[in-house]
Amino acid sequence: MNKSIIRYILGHVMMIEGLLFLLPMVTGIIYGEKEAFTFLSVGVASALLGFLITRKKPVSMVFYLKEGCVTTALSWIILSIIGCIPFVITGEIPSFTDALFETISGFTTTGASILSDVESLSHASLTWRSFTHWIGGMGVLVFLLTILSMTGGSSMNLMKAESPGPSVGKLVPKMRQTAQFLYGIYFVLTFIEFILLIFAGMSVFDSMNTAFATAGTGGFGIKNDSITSYNDAVKVIVTVFMMLFGVNFNAYFFIITGKIKDFFKIEEVRYYLLVILVSIGLIFINIIDLYPSAKEALIDSAFQVGSIITTTGFSTADFNMWNSTAKTVLVLLMFCGACAGSTGGGIKVSRFLIALKTIKKELHSYIHPKSIRKIKIDGKPIEHDVVRSCNVYLITFFCIFIASLFLVSLDNYDLTTNFTAIAATINNIGPGLELVGPTCNFSIFSPLAKYVMMFDMLAGRLELFPILILFNPILWKDALHTNKNAG
Amino acid sequence: MNKSIIRYILGHVMMIEGLLFLLPMVTGIIYGEKEAFTFLSVGVASALLGFLITRKKPVSMVFYLKEGCVTTALSWIILSIIGCIPFVITGEIPSFTDALFETISGFTTTGASILSDVESLSHASLTWRSFTHWIGGMGVLVFLLTILSMTGGSSMNLMKAESPGPSVGKLVPKMRQTAQFLYGIYFVLTFIEFILLIFAGMSVFDSMNTAFATAGTGGFGIKNDSITSYNDAVKVIVTVFMMLFGVNFNAYFFIITGKIKDFFKIEEVRYYLLVILVSIGLIFINIIDLYPSAKEALIDSAFQVGSIITTTGFSTADFNMWNSTAKTVLVLLMFCGACAGSTGGGIKVSRFLIALKTIKKELHSYIHPKSIRKIKIDGKPIEHDVVRSCNVYLITFFCIFIASLFLVSLDNYDLTTNFTAIAATINNIGPGLELVGPTCNFSIFSPLAKYVMMFDMLAGRLELFPILILFNPILWKDALHTNKNAG
Repeated sequence: MNKSIIRYILGHVMMIEGLLFLLPMVTGIIYGEKEAFTFLSVGVASALLGFLITRKKPVSMVFYLKEGCVTTALSWIILSIIGCIPFVITGEIPSFTDALFETISGFTTTGASILSDVESLSHASLTWRSFTHWIGGMGVLVFLLTILSMTGGSSMNLMKAESPGPSVGKLVPKMRQTAQFLYGIYFVLTFIEFILLIFAGMSVFDSMNTAFATAGTGGFGIKNDSITSYNDAVKVIVTVFMMLFGVNFNAYFFIITGKIKDFFKIEEVRYYLLVILVSIGLIFINIIDLYPSAKEALIDSAFQVGSIITTTGFSTADFNMWNSTAKTVLVLLMFCGACAGSTGGGIKVSRFLIALKTIKKELHSYIHPKSIRKIKIDGKPIEHDVVRSCNVYLITFFCIFIASLFLVSLDNYDLTTNFTAIAATINNIGPGLELVGPTCNFSIFSPLAKYVMMFDMLAGRLELFPILILFNPILWKDALHTNKNAG
Repeated sequence: MNKSIIRYILGHVMMIEGLLFLLPMVTGIIYGEKEAFTFLSVGVASALLGFLITRKKPVSMVFYLKEGCVTTALSWIILSIIGCIPFVITGEIPSFTDALFETISGFTTTGASILSDVESLSHASLTWRSFTHWIGGMGVLVFLLTILSMTGGSSMNLMKAESPGPSVGKLVPKMRQTAQFLYGIYFVLTFIEFILLIFAGMSVFDSMNTAFATAGTGGFGIKNDSITSYNDAVKVIVTVFMMLFGVNFNAYFFIITGKIKDFFKIEEVRYYLLVILVSIGLIFINIIDLYPSAKEALIDSAFQVGSIITTTGFSTADFNMWNSTAKTVLVLLMFCGACAGSTGGGIKVSRFLIALKTIKKELHSYIHPKSIRKIKIDGKPIEHDVVRSCNVYLITFFCIFIASLFLVSLDNYDLTTNFTAIAATINNIGPGLELVGPTCNFSIFSPLAKYVMMFDMLAGRLELFPILILFNPILWKDALHTNKNAG
């Protein structure tokens, strides 16, 4: 394993994180908070350490999928560990486990919180909390690719490991341009939402944080009741933007190049919109009796559907109080997730499409055993390997889910709480049902359960395998072996 | 599609069912019950109808997997429809939907009941109820193979569609001998349990019915409290036999031929026993505080684990009252299921083995991309096609599960009830948790939910695809097409 390049990239990640701390620091200065100094000092320390590590250039730039996975997994873990230090130092989240949980939840765009009173945090920390969503949404390594020039294969392997969804399409011939394009859209959409929210009557501070958390499909709110107490205009804007950030970013390429028709021809986008519409309809008819007017019921239905399917996790209603049918729709949406290539988590619409087409093909093969049909998406046959890895993904997902459910059950909370807590973390959503419902938080769990969920959040965000590989003994046996040979 | 051979086999199935009605009839006569006459008349009608249908020999004996699936699915549906008629006529289960639910639950060896007072049934009906488990356990078409002589491929296709588990091994060169061997073991084991239960103090009637329900891993009790009020000896015997009937029957071939060592070399059997032991241990330490003595806690732990993993569904304790950890272990066991090639349902240990090995292989391929390793079971590499169809099975299973969960949620019961009701029916177990716990029953559900669960029970028992194919429009389009061409 090429350890020197991993070290080199991790150093860069630490330097970048040091820079990223500038935002909460500036916010702190504006509001005259002493926390600004904490963010400054941790930021400087991180950048300095990163700088020292990157002084020595790597021996070789050779970089395979293995290194891509290890780098990605380690980057996210290091980002989270450094990122949680300010919370501990300022004493706003005194427990390291809790602070790490909150930060991993931030970077992985989960939005599950262990805080019962968010509003008591400083402006600096609130900004950092929302900002982690924005950083995690597009991925820090993808960002690195926009500034670092690496050999072709290396970028691909990094991007493959960090980007959500079954496949990373090359939009433009060079990976670096693709990364720049994706970050460009990300910037522009976030900025538009920020401006619109200000027009809708939100303060600049609230708008910025809400836009960060929407863009990353994160879901940390800056109010204890999430988005509930804001006006209808805000709710509608957030709903629309949650849904927009759940669309495959490649699709925006069509819009920018003027091929609006092609946008709607993308099968995944079509089904994503269909699932959203059907779910809103189903929930609307099930909750309308609870509301004084149809308009309010519709706003809440659409908001919650958008929030859960895109795995954002904001809320405008305590859906714990809804009836079982409405709750079941939400639980199913938790697993559905958004489109591949978006900032959303979950299993992703395209994987379900492939799974359903696999089943259809299997049934067909019983009836016409000799026919050989390839599964098609958007009219084009997809490679056998994509189908296979999609199936393996689903099976791995359920195995991790089962193991986590068992470990979390040791805390002895009810099944629905445990089940939805795992669903909400592995799918990077945020709130679940019962004791982890939208008005509750994750502080009730034991440290073991919290670490299991941290694993799940990272596994869910990084498409399972990078994190699993990091904990695979074969890798470490190999790494030791390389060391011996090198020495 | 060769419809004449399907008709021919279905006719035989009806004749066999007519004969099978003799057992409840005889029981009814012994106890002087008027229900005996009902079973006689329905039996005669069924046999006569079957006889008329089989009068015309099929045009061709050609028989593909498609016909195998359709025949199997239709056989089980017809068996159930005819089988439920006596319940309706005697008025013991006046609603046709409920009677059909009970009968499908019987034949599929599920054991989920809509009856709140089992003990009020006549002896004849109780016998029929337990007997359906025994018939369904090994499968009626496998039985047909022991008496009908068919061309080689035909038997294979029938057996493949009806036997539980990923693959049907040919123990002896001819399918017919394999079928005879399997039924032989089934008979002998049932008989031994029957005798042992009598020795343990059960009445002949109770022993017979309990042995039927254990052998088929069914779980219909003849007492309202299932096995709870019987003595410890009975509980231990039933526990041991539930576990024995969950073992891959092919493994008994080794025992009979004196290769005891080879028995324990079978990976699936080893893991099956391991899961049982670990689960008993986990539950034991979680429930011991609820019991006056460790012995009672151990007996109940072992009984419930054996009952759930083999998907029998008997109970000696209301596990609704257990803590969340113990309940979670049971819920996970519900999905695990017994060995392939046993009478048990569920996903099967071997499928989980293949799934886990698939994940391991995938991880390995990230680290060593060029290595080509085949997945091995029992030291032998298994065909790519087996792995693929196992993966497709799991994905199909979860898709059916999700769809069922949504449809059942329309009844608006709590999530745990709905989730475990689906788990208990699609895995052919019987009781679930909360409102469908061991002291409750399935009568609470709406007809829609009941039909969904009937579908799930049949799908679960017949390994999903035969039932899915029957409801596949392509099949019917093809069938109509053949008709036109023939006409």
